[in-house]
Amino acid sequence: MYSFKNDYSECGHPRILQALLETNLEQVQGYGEDRFTLEAVELMRRRMDRGDVDIHLFSGGTQTNLTALSAFLRPHEAAVAARTGHILVHETGAIEATGHKVLAIDSDDGKLRPDQLQAVLDLHSDEHMVKPRLVYLSNSTEIGSIYLKDELEQLSRFCREHDLYLYLDGARLGSALCSEENDLTLPDIARLTDAFYIGGTKNGALIGEALVIGRDSLKQEFRFHIKQKGALLAKGRLLGVQFLELFRDDLYFDLARHANAMAALMRDGITRLGYGFLTHSPSNQIFPILPNRMIDRLAEHFEFHIWSKAGEEASAIRLVTSWATQEDAVAAFLAEFAAAQG
Amino acid sequence: MYSFKNDYSECGHPRILQALLETNLEQVQGYGEDRFTLEAVELMRRRMDRGDVDIHLFSGGTQTNLTALSAFLRPHEAAVAARTGHILVHETGAIEATGHKVLAIDSDDGKLRPDQLQAVLDLHSDEHMVKPRLVYLSNSTEIGSIYLKDELEQLSRFCREHDLYLYLDGARLGSALCSEENDLTLPDIARLTDAFYIGGTKNGALIGEALVIGRDSLKQEFRFHIKQKGALLAKGRLLGVQFLELFRDDLYFDLARHANAMAALMRDGITRLGYGFLTHSPSNQIFPILPNRMIDRLAEHFEFHIWSKAGEEASAIRLVTSWATQEDAVAAFLAEFAAAQG
Amino acid sequence: MYSFKNDYSECGHPRILQALLETNLEQVQGYGEDRFTLEAVELMRRRMDRGDVDIHLFSGGTQTNLTALSAFLRPHEAAVAARTGHILVHETGAIEATGHKVLAIDSDDGKLRPDQLQAVLDLHSDEHMVKPRLVYLSNSTEIGSIYLKDELEQLSRFCREHDLYLYLDGARLGSALCSEENDLTLPDIARLTDAFYIGGTKNGALIGEALVIGRDSLKQEFRFHIKQKGALLAKGRLLGVQFLELFRDDLYFDLARHANAMAALMRDGITRLGYGFLTHSPSNQIFPILPNRMIDRLAEHFEFHIWSKAGEEASAIRLVTSWATQEDAVAAFLAEFAAAQG
Amino acid sequence: MYSFKNDYSECGHPRILQALLETNLEQVQGYGEDRFTLEAVELMRRRMDRGDVDIHLFSGGTQTNLTALSAFLRPHEAAVAARTGHILVHETGAIEATGHKVLAIDSDDGKLRPDQLQAVLDLHSDEHMVKPRLVYLSNSTEIGSIYLKDELEQLSRFCREHDLYLYLDGARLGSALCSEENDLTLPDIARLTDAFYIGGTKNGALIGEALVIGRDSLKQEFRFHIKQKGALLAKGRLLGVQFLELFRDDLYFDLARHANAMAALMRDGITRLGYGFLTHSPSNQIFPILPNRMIDRLAEHFEFHIWSKAGEEASAIRLVTSWATQEDAVAAFLAEFAAAQG
Repeated sequence: MYSFKNDYSECGHPRILQALLETNLEQVQGYGEDRFTLEAVELMRRRMDRGDVDIHLFSGGTQTNLTALSAFLRPHEAAVAARTGHILVHETGAIEATGHKVLAIDSDDGKLRPDQLQAVLDLHSDEHMVKPRLVYLSNSTEIGSIYLKDELEQLSRFCREHDLYLYLDGARLGSALCSEENDLTLPDIARLTDAFYIGGTKNGALIGEALVIGRDSLKQEFRFHIKQKGALLAKGRLLGVQFLELFRDDLYFDLARHANAMAALMRDGITRLGYGFLTHSPSNQIFPILPNRMIDRLAEHFEFHIWSKAGEEASAIRLVTSWATQEDAVAAFLAEFAAAQG
Repeated sequence: MYSFKNDYSECGHPRILQALLETNLEQVQGYGEDRFTLEAVELMRRRMDRGDVDIHLFSGGTQTNLTALSAFLRPHEAAVAARTGHILVHETGAIEATGHKVLAIDSDDGKLRPDQLQAVLDLHSDEHMVKPRLVYLSNSTEIGSIYLKDELEQLSRFCREHDLYLYLDGARLGSALCSEENDLTLPDIARLTDAFYIGGTKNGALIGEALVIGRDSLKQEFRFHIKQKGALLAKGRLLGVQFLELFRDDLYFDLARHANAMAALMRDGITRLGYGFLTHSPSNQIFPILPNRMIDRLAEHFEFHIWSKAGEEASAIRLVTSWATQEDAVAAFLAEFAAAQG
Repeated sequence: MYSFKNDYSECGHPRILQALLETNLEQVQGYGEDRFTLEAVELMRRRMDRGDVDIHLFSGGTQTNLTALSAFLRPHEAAVAARTGHILVHETGAIEATGHKVLAIDSDDGKLRPDQLQAVLDLHSDEHMVKPRLVYLSNSTEIGSIYLKDELEQLSRFCREHDLYLYLDGARLGSALCSEENDLTLPDIARLTDAFYIGGTKNGALIGEALVIGRDSLKQEFRFHIKQKGALLAKGRLLGVQFLELFRDDLYFDLARHANAMAALMRDGITRLGYGFLTHSPSNQIFPILPNRMIDRLAEHFEFHIWSKAGEEASAIRLVTSWATQEDAVAAFLAEFAAAQG
Repeated sequence: MYSFKNDYSECGHPRILQALLETNLEQVQGYGEDRFTLEAVELMRRRMDRGDVDIHLFSGGTQTNLTALSAFLRPHEAAVAARTGHILVHETGAIEATGHKVLAIDSDDGKLRPDQLQAVLDLHSDEHMVKPRLVYLSNSTEIGSIYLKDELEQLSRFCREHDLYLYLDGARLGSALCSEENDLTLPDIARLTDAFYIGGTKNGALIGEALVIGRDSLKQEFRFHIKQKGALLAKGRLLGVQFLELFRDDLYFDLARHANAMAALMRDGITRLGYGFLTHSPSNQIFPILPNRMIDRLAEHFEFHIWSKAGEEASAIRLVTSWATQEDAVAAFLAEFAAAQG
């Protein structure tokens, strides 16, 4: 049964495994001070035209988020996120477990706007309430939408004016930046945020996320926090070799483009079959709304998540494509769909 | 320059990389619910004759320790460890960061005894002090010593009599169990502790530690804690495939035996050259005490840690061997040593 | 300028100060083990027909809430509260600071219903999300409403069926239980919840809240938590003497009745003047909606909180009465109001 | 039975109760913004010749320590304390519960010296270990010793040179500053530390400690932390009125002087009877070493703590005097002692 359940059903891109094989027996320093990591960091810095950023490699997104936010915030400070934000719902209270409240903003498209942030600031007026200090964005968002340059610039300006940190969760940053609708670059992201991470796990790595810290005050003694949160791998090379391979050339972006292309194929096919979507998604996750009996039929042959109800008779499902998605599988899905429709 | 600095200078054993390659494109479930992890868990359970234990795979030792201890302990409860214990000194306060004190016991050989535990219990008599609740052991210890069966049985009995959890950090459990002096088995460890972990990172895995929970009350809802601490890998298969390969046959133990054999070669050679050791270590870490000028000379050709001063003119160094240590390298070290001695 | 801003503008009821004076130089045990505290606990137990409950005295409500909830919950467990709940907004993230998420339920009247709890349970389905474990109620609520017996019984039944703890914040429990609309008794509260507290600070004490723990499993080693959170007073007698005086006879309830009577006077007067209220409040807090120019006029002579906007031209204000509110002051307020209305 | 068990067996000094009575019904602002607190803060600032310090009032010492340290320290930073330090042993892991390790220094006299701090800094060399950041002193110490000016100046200089915060727990600061051997003043304490607290509970207040923050960077948004830790009293006046009375004239110091005088009487009497002491204590706690049969005899008539064993036949006991200790009681104790000695 072919799975469109997520973008981590397969393991790593073959070039990455090959790189691991080739470097396997070389003795290197531990704890992320190996030559692969150092070189990968240099390559990524160059990609964002920023020799000054600090970059740290992590094993997963929740780990990255909790380490970064707990290092950045003082005990009374809170993060602000869209209600769909991954840290708000799907990380088992990981941020709260480090002592910080996450304030929710209702958002239909998974994105935040300055006026929504202003409303949160207005409500939190004194020391009886937490102090909103960090704005958490995801790009692409948990429901597939992406930020445009103008939107991110507005948010960035607002945050600087109000002394808020702007943090961007890039678990699917590759897909966002390679979307046909995107007008942001990696240097833009680095310039407009205080910190963000480049997701590897969902874009071809076995595991790995690269946290980029641009604001100087947030860089200080950050490795202590990585170690304290159990995120400093003895064999940090495992992450370094992977990011080195992903950014040695355009591999990172090529993989994201493939995922997006497969999602576009799927989206176009479903549109042609006459169905609509829960949300506008130009990235590698799409959320078609289908009759429940059609969903049951498709579920006999394909794996996917049922996302939400859409009335009594229909539901939105989530289809995710990845670097590894086969065009044949998309075609098979659409064929099954068409056949079911009769 | 050849390194005896630690047992994670190389990456993974070739059979493990091969297994990753072979399973790479197979679609499986995420978050440790893949077939590789399930099968690895079954194999490990069989190795310890315990169908009932829960086993969870982690990326590293600090992560394993902090997730387990914070899940097991209530807020007012504390862990007790030897002063050399990894959680006490070398995890950047990871346990304290989850809210729990770690009480230290002075110990020359890195091991704990019931009378020392009794003294801690005697001191902590009421609610103005933390309540000692979990005893943390390492086997082998941070200074290379190992627990004998009788010693672990005494500790286990004491802990049960005093309602203390017994937790064993097995970062180097392979080396301990394969030591020539060892009389403990994996089933013994499972029987005598409430929880322990089988270290992979320092014994041939790219990354990976397998936490084994034997006491029923500690098993409950444990996956919530893994996720909350950022330790639940989307591609949990990365850990599953490795432990499957390590426990498919005797690979895990073969690798540890090799590491021990290399350490024994080194130990015997150094002894023959007339030098003594800081501590009795029958495992893969040895701590010879050498004149500082000899250390300087060896450091021109080999990497190792200087562990502690031994007077003005000498120091203890730490030499660590691993599954990957080459016999030639040990011979070269000893030859250099002999030559230096003139 | 007379204040209706809150119920803690004055200090303590004269009988309480008198009791402190009379017992002042008697030597007693520290840390809440004095004879006054023991006797106060006995009196309160008798009031709720429950010899088996544990009772601990605290200095304030936030302190009580954070100590209780962090002692009751395991790290992955969350509290559920109405969006107006004090712990959600007005305690500076105190619960999150102990590591626990507080899930919000929208509620117009500040109260919770089983169907709302069910919806929260439905959403939190696996280990990627926190586990809702404790339901936090306030009675009276932060907006003056109170729970009826039938409502609390339904909630209690639901919580027991779903293994949820039911916790009731009684900062203003006196006012709730003495409301003309109330049909609950202190024994009912003790029977229907797992823990609750009897608020003293807002009902005549200098400081003091009495936490009552009814469920056995939540009682264990609770004093450790009090001490750890900095809530164990060396001179615990300061709390004991006060609760002894409040529950020696009907003083606690007499004071609440007075506060309610003053609020009723105010409410009736405002109603007669032709104005309505934000919420139905039969307790000592009322929220009339008044034209902004009327509010400005009243604010020249009286202190109160402006609670929320009600369109462009009007706002809801909060008027709070207490054991110390003078009938003359209420009359003066209403007279000023009438005069302003012309 | 007369108690020398501690300095909080009685409640508050009569003048303090009188002040509470006189101000009782005056309506004032809540949460420490009342006129009493503001005036008390002004008086204390004047006493230390420092108009610039921030002063916050708390209910107890553990609460003060945990709020201050958790506000001052980043997650990876640790406190350093003498092994006898109150935060290390007698606060149920309150500091660790906020996420911070407390590093212990062995000290015979309960005091710290720069060379001991240097040794701790030397050991904590990289990000695998916590970063020592705050030095915790007590004055007087938990075993009755006091810091001399030269000692505190050396510590202060060392801390500034090594970017360490210097924090002084003044639970018994009154007794220390009024000791006959003391050469420190309140302005000295303010000048040489970054923060400290003036203990009220053990020197005549019902409850109350005044935290003084001198370093600007530590002052920021401190009230958020007070609220978050449950330490912001609605009726903050309860603390304000007390400190206003204590510092309106010399009351605070007069009370401490009385306590010291009573301890001196006791110390001299015991010395005359031929017994020695565990530690040199020129403050209100003394620790005579007595034969166990003598201790048993005295315990028939007086309450005190047995502190530690001194061989098989003798023990050190702790005798504490306070503002309320009666000279007659000291005389009775010594008479009983002399009689017992026969």
